[in-house]
Amino acid sequence: MKPERFASLWGTLAPIGRGAHGYHRFAWSPPELACRDWFAEQAAERGMPVETDRNGNLWAWLGDPGAGDAVVAGSHFDSVPGGGGYDGPLGIVSAFLALDLLRERGLTPARPVGVAAFAEEEGSRFGIACLGSRLMCGALDPERAAALRDPDGVSLAEASGLDPAGFGPDPQRLAGIGAFVELHVEQGRALTAPVGVASAIWPHGRWRLEFAGEGNHAGTTLMADRHDPMLTFAYTVLAANKEARLRGGHATIGRVAAVPNATNAIPASVTGWLDARAADQSTLDGLVEAVTVRATERAGRDGTSVAVTAESVSPVTGFDAALRDRLAALLGGVPVLPTGAGHDAGVLATRVPTAMLFVRNPTGVSHAPGEYATDEDCAAGVGALADVLAELACR
Amino acid sequence: MKPERFASLWGTLAPIGRGAHGYHRFAWSPPELACRDWFAEQAAERGMPVETDRNGNLWAWLGDPGAGDAVVAGSHFDSVPGGGGYDGPLGIVSAFLALDLLRERGLTPARPVGVAAFAEEEGSRFGIACLGSRLMCGALDPERAAALRDPDGVSLAEASGLDPAGFGPDPQRLAGIGAFVELHVEQGRALTAPVGVASAIWPHGRWRLEFAGEGNHAGTTLMADRHDPMLTFAYTVLAANKEARLRGGHATIGRVAAVPNATNAIPASVTGWLDARAADQSTLDGLVEAVTVRATERAGRDGTSVAVTAESVSPVTGFDAALRDRLAALLGGVPVLPTGAGHDAGVLATRVPTAMLFVRNPTGVSHAPGEYATDEDCAAGVGALADVLAELACR
Repeated sequence: MKPERFASLWGTLAPIGRGAHGYHRFAWSPPELACRDWFAEQAAERGMPVETDRNGNLWAWLGDPGAGDAVVAGSHFDSVPGGGGYDGPLGIVSAFLALDLLRERGLTPARPVGVAAFAEEEGSRFGIACLGSRLMCGALDPERAAALRDPDGVSLAEASGLDPAGFGPDPQRLAGIGAFVELHVEQGRALTAPVGVASAIWPHGRWRLEFAGEGNHAGTTLMADRHDPMLTFAYTVLAANKEARLRGGHATIGRVAAVPNATNAIPASVTGWLDARAADQSTLDGLVEAVTVRATERAGRDGTSVAVTAESVSPVTGFDAALRDRLAALLGGVPVLPTGAGHDAGVLATRVPTAMLFVRNPTGVSHAPGEYATDEDCAAGVGALADVLAELACR
Repeated sequence: MKPERFASLWGTLAPIGRGAHGYHRFAWSPPELACRDWFAEQAAERGMPVETDRNGNLWAWLGDPGAGDAVVAGSHFDSVPGGGGYDGPLGIVSAFLALDLLRERGLTPARPVGVAAFAEEEGSRFGIACLGSRLMCGALDPERAAALRDPDGVSLAEASGLDPAGFGPDPQRLAGIGAFVELHVEQGRALTAPVGVASAIWPHGRWRLEFAGEGNHAGTTLMADRHDPMLTFAYTVLAANKEARLRGGHATIGRVAAVPNATNAIPASVTGWLDARAADQSTLDGLVEAVTVRATERAGRDGTSVAVTAESVSPVTGFDAALRDRLAALLGGVPVLPTGAGHDAGVLATRVPTAMLFVRNPTGVSHAPGEYATDEDCAAGVGALADVLAELACR
């Protein structure tokens, strides 16, 4: 596919939700709803009926999904706050374009082919990543989902317009899917060719670190009388970084909330969120344990306390080995590489044969406005995805 | 005055703006407006006309303030977020009660006597402490005040209902005041007697520390590729604490804002606010300089940057020495002590003879729900303030 052709369709989606400080496409916010409208238009142009499933995921179908053994490609529209434009949408735009290539090559799928857009992959609105795919696959308690509220107090049911009684596993839908392929922009400068195939997703998780001290006046409280949880938080930020470097893992504390968060007040409490990932489970466990030990030790010195709570933890996800090797060979021996990021494909992989394709990221920037892939590499990704769909659905 | 009598009037004000996590009485918010209504009721019960000046400060008068050489007592109603109930209101409640004591003693003021409630002393809504008294005294540019907006985008004029063209110096009002006395709860366990007299306010200020890095994906960005401003922020929090301890000053970073503040994103930027205070100007300057140097050095190692901006800096305030000594002697040689906190009295002191009385704080907690003074000590404060008003206004 010519890069210009990719760019032409990309340009119809790219402006939605883009601001001076990156993309803000929270699930079911006006920009994400506009992306869903765009999905419906693209499906209609290709004669593909669209449905929204019980968990808020979108599906467009070529052929009758009831026939079973469907091949599905797709990703998600939602972004982190101030995120990039490629993470998610590239997998949906490339799926529609890959179907166009199949048609132009005169190939008619022998199996139903779907394009999917999963809901709330980033967890930016309701706090749980891969919300739509997890619910579909039975990896999230529907009652917990029904109780979720965004920071403004809006429930998942209110935001989505869905019946909360319908949240939950969708075994019939899963049984009809023979393979799922998610194309995604690579996120860390690990891919030096235009396109690659995923081997696995690192085990990863989010832990809430609650530091409690004693709120007091910043001007009048003697330094020796303080129980300042900001000190314990700060020490833990540095300790997490150091422990991750020592172990070859990744640790980040990028989110913080202080109470009362006033310039002239020693905080009563500070909450930080630890995002930690590593190549294997024991390394990840060791990393989180080391951070916890060091935070607790420092809290003892600061006269504060720390409580560590796992908010979500995902074990290592190995993609279907046969499918992975078949696709890598089909694409001419492209690189096979792991990723530190979670994806809907990682959730689907527990239930159906699943693969991921990566498109090169020249800068390694992800989840930020600088996230980027060239039109040439994206077009190469479309071509690779078309080859994969031809291999899986048209033979 | 009997403690029960203090407690009785205190109990009519204490519930306003009190929540499960302390007081929230932001300037011109519904709770602070309810405090202003309370002020008008108390004045009316005592036959004192009330006026709001051009800068939003409240005044109640006994006698004609136009006669000049007035004696004024007062403080402020507004609180920090989640603050205590005594910081500010104690100075207003005690002023009304002290006037009651004068009347009961058969003393008639020979000079006009006023009770004042200054606007936005904490700076919790518009970010500038002692906003009302600074404007009145010409210590804040009226155009800067007119441009202030609270976090919801509401301007000072909109919040207060005042004409912004009227903001600014009030020389006629100042010329009519012969002495100002602010009674305040002590804030750091420095006072071991029920009542004390202030010697000086430490030089102090607020500096905004802006740490800029590169936003990126927390899961996929190699540790070595990161430019994480949270690391520089964390190091600076610990450095500020250490430098303050080394110098016998106070340094606090209790307010923080990360962008985008998402669990799975390395922040693009983190802003912290440094509150620093010391016994003299050169110590304070050395403290802020040391923090700046260490933050800048660390930013070089993190591949980030730091910009330090002074938001407000107040030099040392020595209260009127003759008045201070006269009051300390009048009150039987009570302790004379400095404070690390800013006050409206510190602003007034630059224009009129000013004194402060402190009431003992048994826990040293301030700007937090645990802030407290016993009814006995508060009643002793009322008695002392009545003695002071008798001395200054009734002879």
